[in-house]
Amino acid sequence: MAKTVRVDLGPRSYDVQVGPELLSLLGETAVRVGGIGQVVVISDSTVSQLYGPQATDSLVAAGLNVKLLEFPAGEANKSLATAGRLYDELFAIEPAIDRSCLIIALGGGVPGDMAGMIAATALRGVRWLQSPTTLLADVDASVGGKTGVDHLAGKNLIGAFHQPSGVVIDVITLKTLPLVELRSGLAECVKHAVIRDASLLDYIEHNAEGILACDEAILTELVARNVKIKAGVVSADERESGQRAHLNFGHTVGHGIEAFLGYGGATHGQCVALGMIAACRISERKGLVDASVRERITHTLASVGLETKVAGLDSGEVWRIMQHDKKARAGTVRFVLPTELGTVDVYDDVPEKDVMEAISMLG
Amino acid sequence: MAKTVRVDLGPRSYDVQVGPELLSLLGETAVRVGGIGQVVVISDSTVSQLYGPQATDSLVAAGLNVKLLEFPAGEANKSLATAGRLYDELFAIEPAIDRSCLIIALGGGVPGDMAGMIAATALRGVRWLQSPTTLLADVDASVGGKTGVDHLAGKNLIGAFHQPSGVVIDVITLKTLPLVELRSGLAECVKHAVIRDASLLDYIEHNAEGILACDEAILTELVARNVKIKAGVVSADERESGQRAHLNFGHTVGHGIEAFLGYGGATHGQCVALGMIAACRISERKGLVDASVRERITHTLASVGLETKVAGLDSGEVWRIMQHDKKARAGTVRFVLPTELGTVDVYDDVPEKDVMEAISMLG
Repeated sequence: MAKTVRVDLGPRSYDVQVGPELLSLLGETAVRVGGIGQVVVISDSTVSQLYGPQATDSLVAAGLNVKLLEFPAGEANKSLATAGRLYDELFAIEPAIDRSCLIIALGGGVPGDMAGMIAATALRGVRWLQSPTTLLADVDASVGGKTGVDHLAGKNLIGAFHQPSGVVIDVITLKTLPLVELRSGLAECVKHAVIRDASLLDYIEHNAEGILACDEAILTELVARNVKIKAGVVSADERESGQRAHLNFGHTVGHGIEAFLGYGGATHGQCVALGMIAACRISERKGLVDASVRERITHTLASVGLETKVAGLDSGEVWRIMQHDKKARAGTVRFVLPTELGTVDVYDDVPEKDVMEAISMLG
Repeated sequence: MAKTVRVDLGPRSYDVQVGPELLSLLGETAVRVGGIGQVVVISDSTVSQLYGPQATDSLVAAGLNVKLLEFPAGEANKSLATAGRLYDELFAIEPAIDRSCLIIALGGGVPGDMAGMIAATALRGVRWLQSPTTLLADVDASVGGKTGVDHLAGKNLIGAFHQPSGVVIDVITLKTLPLVELRSGLAECVKHAVIRDASLLDYIEHNAEGILACDEAILTELVARNVKIKAGVVSADERESGQRAHLNFGHTVGHGIEAFLGYGGATHGQCVALGMIAACRISERKGLVDASVRERITHTLASVGLETKVAGLDSGEVWRIMQHDKKARAGTVRFVLPTELGTVDVYDDVPEKDVMEAISMLG
């Protein structure tokens, strides 16, 4: 039942394979993308324990020379300091790695961003494969080539665009994912539906039970459909200068809420879910859509157990944070707003009072 | 008398301007490549003191918002730790920089590599201009987009390919360059001549006096011709998979000598000069050229005051170091050897005894 989605980026094109038990085929994929000698798997302590042996066994069976580097799990470790320790370990490997080295990112967003950053910068760039293990990473980070680490001044401030040579998504790994994290990824799935494919909302609603129970066939279909949507957007705008902005739907207010609630307050996806509802409300105030769009999205989010209300938000403070977001170019806060279900556009002329009202409405 | 050389890299093409007093036009260039707001000049303590005010004055006069970041001069500071401090300062700038930020590398190889690395990785890549101030950086680092920092395990192990938006070479800055550093750059000029354009050897020999006296017109012509040669090689092979290897002529043995002599032993260019002589000797032993090629190159090197002999080399130790060079792919040491004056080819079947003999001959 495995599916393959092509990410079309000219000479940097690659395949995303989605299906159950694909980790066992990691070695085959590594050889197919040109792995010929040293392979370095970079993972975090949590994922390494769960899936490290399966990944390395497959690579060793394919005749590759494998080394596993591990760093402590958690966003707090997605830092230049951790990268520095990984470089130390990478360059201590004997015999010394050369540009034929293949790096494999095993894990969710943090190991993916970190391993991708190392691949982008070791020896001025070596090839890498991504093997995400969270739904958020499956449908979001697996396409686009964004890599990086955080800085005290903000998330992902240090990094590079560095496309992987391939992505291997084993949906079995979602069975060990906490439900709250599965839901976080589902918010991004809803986002993809709203910006490009309204019929995906139907799919999510109709299969909510199967998704939450980690049915392999349903997850494979869900992930493949989402990867295809994201691949379409990224293919058209690799360096994030145009329509890739559409992927920020729900993120303008969402990031504000995420920062307001602070570490541990709510998952990224949960905040994006709330941000999408707010964006719909702003869109209504602008006369772009009627309330049915917001109601429909809210219903889909609720069907998979995402919260559609949040207590204790301070609208003024959330708005202040939004104005300082790194994506606020030259002080203007940009909004991605639905113009109908399945289509969005970018606006930078949203009145402050409409934003405040939309945030208040979430309470 | 200024000259412009185009580096043709498709969508990443850019111009290299060469001439006297060009630092005063830095602001104009910055605006022309799209600098619209924040400009951050990154330089080392030596160059910052000499040319920082001239560069920033020009940028301010062009209406740009300029910040100068400085780090202590010296290769020892081309480290991830220094990069970390520069990120801290960069992200502390108010208002916060966004992707429209333009970084300007002011200085020789170290500030160029460092500022380029910061530009390649800040916010996943911002534009940058290079304004080199040493002959080596003028004719070598200014073309190719190589950026990076050193690691204890080796030079330039951490970095990226990130093409600048333009290069501004003010040949006046060579007047403050120590003669030994000017000569180091001249070795790379001789290298360019040998790999691509034998008539450049004539130019260097005939104008040796003017070059060493920093005659503006001669330096402008010399630098422009060299930039053009390097641009031709890099255009044909941006990511260093094919003919860009030709630029390593003299570097295989040269790096070995440089590492053997250690810090302060001899300049990079001086070691490359010796490496070129050794490569010619190896080429003779292979029957590719006769001794006249080596004699001619030796004569040109001597005409600008580069040493063509070195005392105290241990051939066996130099050879051991060469075998551990990061460019020794899968254990094979590759040699770039002249096949006639102006043409080279790559060989990986050089017998150890020929290498040893060629190194011994330098004593």
